[in-house]
Amino acid sequence: MKQIEIKKDILSAHEMIACENRKLFNKKGIFVLNLMSSPGAGKTTLLERTIELLKNNFNLGVIEGDVATSYDAERISAHGIKAVQINTGGACHLESTMIKNAMAEFATERLDVLIIENVGNLVCPAEFDLGEDAKIMILSVTEGEDKPLKYPLMFRLSKALIINKVDLLPYIDCSTERIIQDVRSINPDLKVFETSCTKKTGLNGWKEWLQEEINKKKHSLKNV
Amino acid sequence: MKQIEIKKDILSAHEMIACENRKLFNKKGIFVLNLMSSPGAGKTTLLERTIELLKNNFNLGVIEGDVATSYDAERISAHGIKAVQINTGGACHLESTMIKNAMAEFATERLDVLIIENVGNLVCPAEFDLGEDAKIMILSVTEGEDKPLKYPLMFRLSKALIINKVDLLPYIDCSTERIIQDVRSINPDLKVFETSCTKKTGLNGWKEWLQEEINKKKHSLKNV
Repeated sequence: MKQIEIKKDILSAHEMIACENRKLFNKKGIFVLNLMSSPGAGKTTLLERTIELLKNNFNLGVIEGDVATSYDAERISAHGIKAVQINTGGACHLESTMIKNAMAEFATERLDVLIIENVGNLVCPAEFDLGEDAKIMILSVTEGEDKPLKYPLMFRLSKALIINKVDLLPYIDCSTERIIQDVRSINPDLKVFETSCTKKTGLNGWKEWLQEEINKKKHSLKNV
Repeated sequence: MKQIEIKKDILSAHEMIACENRKLFNKKGIFVLNLMSSPGAGKTTLLERTIELLKNNFNLGVIEGDVATSYDAERISAHGIKAVQINTGGACHLESTMIKNAMAEFATERLDVLIIENVGNLVCPAEFDLGEDAKIMILSVTEGEDKPLKYPLMFRLSKALIINKVDLLPYIDCSTERIIQDVRSINPDLKVFETSCTKKTGLNGWKEWLQEEINKKKHSLKNV
């Protein structure tokens, strides 16, 4: 009996386009982040803070992924940054083809950094390579300390974790030590930052790390 | 050219099993809730509060859906309630077949109410009928007031919405009026409750509504 592996074929198509995206990003020297979290963990606010921190030194672009509305792209555009909104309709994650199509909207020659804000979802976005340099996660302390072990894949694949809304810690039952201990058991190399994006605290370490990563990529591309 | 509609066929298989589940629930007189939300909105804590409110009057059972771990089933079992844990592996939602298999673990003759806690995800769980009587949503105020319009399907299909963690309202920028106004534009019949499940406030209305719905089903089955 012949078995047709449909799932494998679909994944390969996604991966092929992700590979194309990666080639484009490298050719144009663009550093690309894929920002993932549950709904409401603070992705768009982190993005706004990151824009404020980087926009004097780098040319930035943003791709916003949402099931519906263009609220997030409007928030980003208000900072004077080019933002393209993708509405996925029913889909709970972004896919490489959506990114490929969105890239046609950017003047890629002038772009240093592209930040992709994925659909709010702690499961599926981690499974889809978009061609990015680094997956970044945000976890809000209000989501609870049990999340790393309950949703391990995203924590395993991310390069940095931002533990956000730490200003609410006095009012809730959540230990960031427990979160950090659990994420280290899944991903010992994960870089961790504790922030309040609305109160603008804890963001210096994030800025420095990001600048290092951007410069590291620029340097490595020059040496090719 | 012949088009093969794979998606439709898969959905039909899910729907067929959901239909079987529904028949079983009706035959045994079991009222079934499908509890959905983002990760960390408070599903398990609401479940614990609901058990405390109902366990003297009804025989309860719980099915816990998680990508990984059996933490939630352990929390529920500690209340002396039978809980079956489903680990979905990679899947970001529960499906009717998983519920069918889990039902084999229950003494269905003695069950009045079954509460299914879905995987934490604001998108896909809404798309999969499990055979339940009512979909119930929890939205934490910490997730932000923009969520109903950004993730409309789940709000549209739910029978009741619990706006949770209202004890944190003094410390964040979120208007429950705005949430209620937006959900009413999507689903005018949605029943809304404002609670703090950890502080045990606002739960009376939820208890009364639930008792009414359970008794309504019991009554309608008697008249068949």
